[in-house]
Amino acid sequence: MEKELLTSMTLTGWQSLNKRIEKLVDGLTDEQLQAEVAPGRNRGIYLLGHMATVSDMMLPLLGLGTALKPEYQAIFVSSPDKAVKELPSATEVKSYLKEVNATLNGHFAKMNADDWFKKHTQVSDEDFAKEPHRNRLNIILSRTGHHNYHLGQMAFLQPKA
Amino acid sequence: MEKELLTSMTLTGWQSLNKRIEKLVDGLTDEQLQAEVAPGRNRGIYLLGHMATVSDMMLPLLGLGTALKPEYQAIFVSSPDKAVKELPSATEVKSYLKEVNATLNGHFAKMNADDWFKKHTQVSDEDFAKEPHRNRLNIILSRTGHHNYHLGQMAFLQPKA
Repeated sequence: MEKELLTSMTLTGWQSLNKRIEKLVDGLTDEQLQAEVAPGRNRGIYLLGHMATVSDMMLPLLGLGTALKPEYQAIFVSSPDKAVKELPSATEVKSYLKEVNATLNGHFAKMNADDWFKKHTQVSDEDFAKEPHRNRLNIILSRTGHHNYHLGQMAFLQPKA
Repeated sequence: MEKELLTSMTLTGWQSLNKRIEKLVDGLTDEQLQAEVAPGRNRGIYLLGHMATVSDMMLPLLGLGTALKPEYQAIFVSSPDKAVKELPSATEVKSYLKEVNATLNGHFAKMNADDWFKKHTQVSDEDFAKEPHRNRLNIILSRTGHHNYHLGQMAFLQPKA
């Protein structure tokens, strides 16, 4: 009972956060996305690609398949902003974000509460026996924190109220 | 079993986030905290007070007692930054943050997993029967999101790497 409840609380939090991110991004022009979120900091387009790629990497991490665009990891995760000469276009990255979210949601809809308490793919059976918190649901918790952190920064791309 | 595990995962996430916030704030001078996190946005001192007050308000919300400084709600939650003429000093707000965190942690150490699935004080028995996700643990999840969002912004007060 609590297992189902907590799984659904965690997933609802993740999904509503991603809806907020999509809504924010949809309200920004390509030009706004090319701007730095604060002077000398990451550009909007980089943070958008960064969040989408981190979400995409959850597919292999949760054992749900391969990433949709594994080549984005070198651009948006292993490299800091401005290290890569030309980033994919804003249109491309926006549609990637939505595709990743839809793909994850499609998988999540088929998973039950017990599935969420199974280990993720980056922990061994031995370690998981000792550290049962290294399960799939914990990935959702940590990625929710990650995305909230960057959403607070992306919000600065919007005109001041 | 999963109940204990998920409660502990959620609380660990909350507590390590608050340690990160304390560490960031400890590394900032009073002068740095007086700066806006980005041009025209909230000042560090305001965001610090805002996060600490939102945490403090969890005491009554979780049924653990009264807020340590209920008078801060008018300054840091109901009012936007710059609406209140003089904010409490950085020293005062830093020590408030730590006192709030220590007080919450003291209460949390005495709570068991079942306590976390009880309703919080802002939901009626009738509504809680229909919406069991409106429990105390969900407050931790949502406040973790809230604090991560603002931590991402506060990070801009640090010199660029």
